[in-house]
Amino acid sequence: MNVAVIGATGYTGLELVRMLLQHPTLKLTYVSSDSQAGAMLTKVYPHLKGLVRHTLQRAEAKEIAEVADLVFTALPSGLSTEIVPELLDTGLKVIDLAGDHRLTQADYRQWYQKNPPAQATLATAVYGLPELQADKIAQADLIANPGCYPTATLLSLLPLVQQGLIETDTLIVDAKSGVSGAGKALSAATHYVEVNENFKAYKVGTHQHIPEIEGVLAQAAGHEVILSFTTHLVPMTRGILITAYAKLTENRSTADLLALYEQAYADHPFVRICEAGRMPETKEVAGSNFCDIGLRVDPRTQRVTVIGVIDNLVKGAAGQAIQNANLIAGLDQTTGLIAAPFYF
Amino acid sequence: MNVAVIGATGYTGLELVRMLLQHPTLKLTYVSSDSQAGAMLTKVYPHLKGLVRHTLQRAEAKEIAEVADLVFTALPSGLSTEIVPELLDTGLKVIDLAGDHRLTQADYRQWYQKNPPAQATLATAVYGLPELQADKIAQADLIANPGCYPTATLLSLLPLVQQGLIETDTLIVDAKSGVSGAGKALSAATHYVEVNENFKAYKVGTHQHIPEIEGVLAQAAGHEVILSFTTHLVPMTRGILITAYAKLTENRSTADLLALYEQAYADHPFVRICEAGRMPETKEVAGSNFCDIGLRVDPRTQRVTVIGVIDNLVKGAAGQAIQNANLIAGLDQTTGLIAAPFYF
Amino acid sequence: MNVAVIGATGYTGLELVRMLLQHPTLKLTYVSSDSQAGAMLTKVYPHLKGLVRHTLQRAEAKEIAEVADLVFTALPSGLSTEIVPELLDTGLKVIDLAGDHRLTQADYRQWYQKNPPAQATLATAVYGLPELQADKIAQADLIANPGCYPTATLLSLLPLVQQGLIETDTLIVDAKSGVSGAGKALSAATHYVEVNENFKAYKVGTHQHIPEIEGVLAQAAGHEVILSFTTHLVPMTRGILITAYAKLTENRSTADLLALYEQAYADHPFVRICEAGRMPETKEVAGSNFCDIGLRVDPRTQRVTVIGVIDNLVKGAAGQAIQNANLIAGLDQTTGLIAAPFYF
Amino acid sequence: MNVAVIGATGYTGLELVRMLLQHPTLKLTYVSSDSQAGAMLTKVYPHLKGLVRHTLQRAEAKEIAEVADLVFTALPSGLSTEIVPELLDTGLKVIDLAGDHRLTQADYRQWYQKNPPAQATLATAVYGLPELQADKIAQADLIANPGCYPTATLLSLLPLVQQGLIETDTLIVDAKSGVSGAGKALSAATHYVEVNENFKAYKVGTHQHIPEIEGVLAQAAGHEVILSFTTHLVPMTRGILITAYAKLTENRSTADLLALYEQAYADHPFVRICEAGRMPETKEVAGSNFCDIGLRVDPRTQRVTVIGVIDNLVKGAAGQAIQNANLIAGLDQTTGLIAAPFYF
Repeated sequence: MNVAVIGATGYTGLELVRMLLQHPTLKLTYVSSDSQAGAMLTKVYPHLKGLVRHTLQRAEAKEIAEVADLVFTALPSGLSTEIVPELLDTGLKVIDLAGDHRLTQADYRQWYQKNPPAQATLATAVYGLPELQADKIAQADLIANPGCYPTATLLSLLPLVQQGLIETDTLIVDAKSGVSGAGKALSAATHYVEVNENFKAYKVGTHQHIPEIEGVLAQAAGHEVILSFTTHLVPMTRGILITAYAKLTENRSTADLLALYEQAYADHPFVRICEAGRMPETKEVAGSNFCDIGLRVDPRTQRVTVIGVIDNLVKGAAGQAIQNANLIAGLDQTTGLIAAPFYF
Repeated sequence: MNVAVIGATGYTGLELVRMLLQHPTLKLTYVSSDSQAGAMLTKVYPHLKGLVRHTLQRAEAKEIAEVADLVFTALPSGLSTEIVPELLDTGLKVIDLAGDHRLTQADYRQWYQKNPPAQATLATAVYGLPELQADKIAQADLIANPGCYPTATLLSLLPLVQQGLIETDTLIVDAKSGVSGAGKALSAATHYVEVNENFKAYKVGTHQHIPEIEGVLAQAAGHEVILSFTTHLVPMTRGILITAYAKLTENRSTADLLALYEQAYADHPFVRICEAGRMPETKEVAGSNFCDIGLRVDPRTQRVTVIGVIDNLVKGAAGQAIQNANLIAGLDQTTGLIAAPFYF
Repeated sequence: MNVAVIGATGYTGLELVRMLLQHPTLKLTYVSSDSQAGAMLTKVYPHLKGLVRHTLQRAEAKEIAEVADLVFTALPSGLSTEIVPELLDTGLKVIDLAGDHRLTQADYRQWYQKNPPAQATLATAVYGLPELQADKIAQADLIANPGCYPTATLLSLLPLVQQGLIETDTLIVDAKSGVSGAGKALSAATHYVEVNENFKAYKVGTHQHIPEIEGVLAQAAGHEVILSFTTHLVPMTRGILITAYAKLTENRSTADLLALYEQAYADHPFVRICEAGRMPETKEVAGSNFCDIGLRVDPRTQRVTVIGVIDNLVKGAAGQAIQNANLIAGLDQTTGLIAAPFYF
Repeated sequence: MNVAVIGATGYTGLELVRMLLQHPTLKLTYVSSDSQAGAMLTKVYPHLKGLVRHTLQRAEAKEIAEVADLVFTALPSGLSTEIVPELLDTGLKVIDLAGDHRLTQADYRQWYQKNPPAQATLATAVYGLPELQADKIAQADLIANPGCYPTATLLSLLPLVQQGLIETDTLIVDAKSGVSGAGKALSAATHYVEVNENFKAYKVGTHQHIPEIEGVLAQAAGHEVILSFTTHLVPMTRGILITAYAKLTENRSTADLLALYEQAYADHPFVRICEAGRMPETKEVAGSNFCDIGLRVDPRTQRVTVIGVIDNLVKGAAGQAIQNANLIAGLDQTTGLIAAPFYF
């Protein structure tokens, strides 16, 4: 299957290129960058010399359809909305890594402060969390690839919520991310001197990923879910760790819950459960498509603490997108994605 | 007033030396290090060349009493218990930076897994949080200098707890610290390659600072307080940030609560309240004795999120110890402590 | 003496503010920032809350002259050229931290690619390296405050060059700097993700500090000096380390040369010489005005290797500027500048 | 071909495991760690869960020979000397990543301060720099895998030295390395707080890699080579950058020399030459087996500056070892090694 990447020079686009180079059957035939169209990809990123020979194009749906079957859109939110309908019209399958197709129109308008996609397009979009709904993904034309924070949060909480084991109105998620999540755009917030040797919260209670998380959890719970969600910036490049707290609805031990998680993810090779007494670290999944999860029931508070980690650029973006592409292509979902984490 | 530092080559001891060099009236007359006794301090720390001429001693209470009026004990937990009674016997005032004199015997035994100080000694110890009880501190012979996490947490929560504005059984504190908090001892957990580009939780729900926090909050609340408390390691050297979540007991706006904090800390120059819409960052207090606090009431969840930051080595250790020494010496508590944060 | 800072919101301007707050006699009466004129300094930099009450002004020479005796210009190269003559005309003493007044017109044009200051102004400028010419500095109206790389390089090499002990045509300086040297302006080169976990060279053999170094060394040598000079970017915020290599003109031991350095800097409290076998580290001078120097004669190559470190924002900019201001004000040059390095 | 890793829990051993998991034909059948024998590899390194099922063994030559054809020894210097003869006796091919088999007995004794291997063993060892002597490597029983600094330095300089284009007695190499080069052992020098936000030189002129570099260069030059070599520690995990300076023996332009390098490495896919005006950065090779080289002739000094970068754990250790194993196995040397650098 031939694939294209729109927005190949951004951080998630570049990570898609890196990972597709390891893929045995998805063949990268087209890369675009409106701002640097005409340049060789190796001119912009010399570290790819000897590995790719692509020239960056200005994204044109018809041209893409001639050379590819599936396209990854790795664009800032708002731009996907414009180009995705054209891409779908040509018959291309689309995996959209932006936030545009994950929410209802009303939520998108409220949380992203932008005009949402048309309802007709939204109606065809399938939320691309393979551990939740691989079958639907395999049949979809348009995938809304999940956000980085939602991926880590949902995989960490779904088993509990699906089983009704936590009081969802006590749910608090304290999230921490490396800087690559902010993308390549220049801003004071990503200046080295501002970030280095610093730790801070941002968008406290107002992050645009909140409705995405609440929407999926509500479906799993069968009722509305509203949570406290705070995002923090860690002075490192890759990685997300979320720490979730909730009251249990019934008395369960750490061992009980770990067994539940092991079972829930038994057929999901990218989710790994830590043994009792251990919690995951971001470097243990760096560069890989794994989501590692640990948990502990605190006998003092009757709360469960769940900790989940992903590489925000991989399972939180490019890797998950390729996992979805594998499903669409009828491949095993792990094809081209089983690599050891960088670790250091 | 002449002062001594026992354990001057550890990180908090060294920070005490740095800060005492800026102090106009507290004069550092004695430094000890059992492992490097006999060496010049500048031999161990050449960066102090030209600034100090002290030779490291093996700590002896009588010798200290001859040259100092007050002593800072910057020793690992467990060692303070041994030496503090001897120091007190000579008539020295003692400010203990270890955890030994902050808890009841039972709590110390349980959370530190060590033998506690004698009850007679404990009974004389005053908890050295100047914003809570400056008067008692000024009269004390033995100060239990607060832990780093407790300092950040208590200053961030006391106004709410004292006013009964939060349901304390919903209280969750998600804490993050730089690596210097782990001290100078070698361990895999502080190896550069293990920490760099990594974020992880540790001692989830079991950190020894928990009973210290709960004890002070319980006194302020007038009833038992049990909280969820998780500590995380940030790949940076200095700084603690705590994010606290709790349900409000009554409907209050962000502006209401900020006004309450401004009032509560009006006479406390080291606590600074962020204006609405802003949250503090660790680098904004680096190297300084400030504790900066921001908060937000989330209209979606009726929870308040409070974020507090300190430099763990300063307000969380050496700076607060000097603040306590100022009170004991009858000085203005800010003497020698008003310096701009490093910032970068 | 009252002083002003033009460009107070840049990194060196902000460091001037930090350090002036510690100064017992230089009083900061005026701060400017054209881009943020009208705002409180604490609005732009909340970490200064409780420490300063200044409002940022649009720089106007006459207004400055009414409230200050001396002004620090902490502007990007090119802008100083415009404003300095106006400042001097009002009778203000000026310490210019930019590169504008350090070179001949021809060199400035060639290496900075900008129009140089008028010759009349240049003729009055005194190069502000106090260890080289404190007397001239004390009498000057306009100080060209040295660049960060030149400060580290010159202090590391002047004793050898003045004594004719190295063959200057074999001189190679390999320089490394933290990121704060690049200033606050946004660029891909200072994006956290680009800098973090990366080491690279830049401006190889073409850095604009080369003629500044060569000019001062030539004066000391009594003949032309041309050196190889390469700059590298270190993933850290503060600090410069230079490694210099040269052939000796006569057989000298490490001990000989260290004795020479000790003697050369005996009356210069900010230069510290490492004992034989030790080399300096950037963190040993972080936040301080010290320049630490170590050296070794390699018996295998008959070359001397000299290593010097400074904090680029302090001895390489703001601290040295205050040292110069002390001289102009008739104060001891260390006034307000003796503080222990941050170290960590 | 089945392969074993002795010392699989050290940093280079672990990197071998990571890279072998990507290899299509070399099969990892055995891993050893004397200190953790008996444990599952995933117990020691949970990030490998789902990827390996190996149990760590105590290294025994006979047992290894039963399950493997080739063994990588990733042990500290000194230990290889002991075990390599036993391994060779069983008929195993050995690739030794330690420094033991790279030097003459005299040099090893002098620079490593340890007893060298037997001369008989040394005589059979082939220096494993594939770009220098792939044919010899393919026939060897024992490979002395090059050191990290030598790999970067030799690849950067060999074309010039082989052509007699530099005066080797003017050669200076200023080298910088990330912290992983220091290995997993605990020491003050690798404590996070000591390394972070710090830059320093170490082993100035005395690093044990000096004779290795000089020996290979001497062979290429046809005469003795003695160079100045200084190593520095960069606050990052992976990467080496070397900056080399030398006088040219004849007038050559940057373009001339780049053309020479392009030609010299035309058949060597892991060496990439930067185009004129660009210099390589360590992150451009991170995680990969590439060595990127840039250079510039300085018209002011008639010196050439050559800059080379590698990932010290890959081309400087594990990757090069696999490249050597490929040659021994009769495979294309790039087999399993063509992956895009991590980049961030």
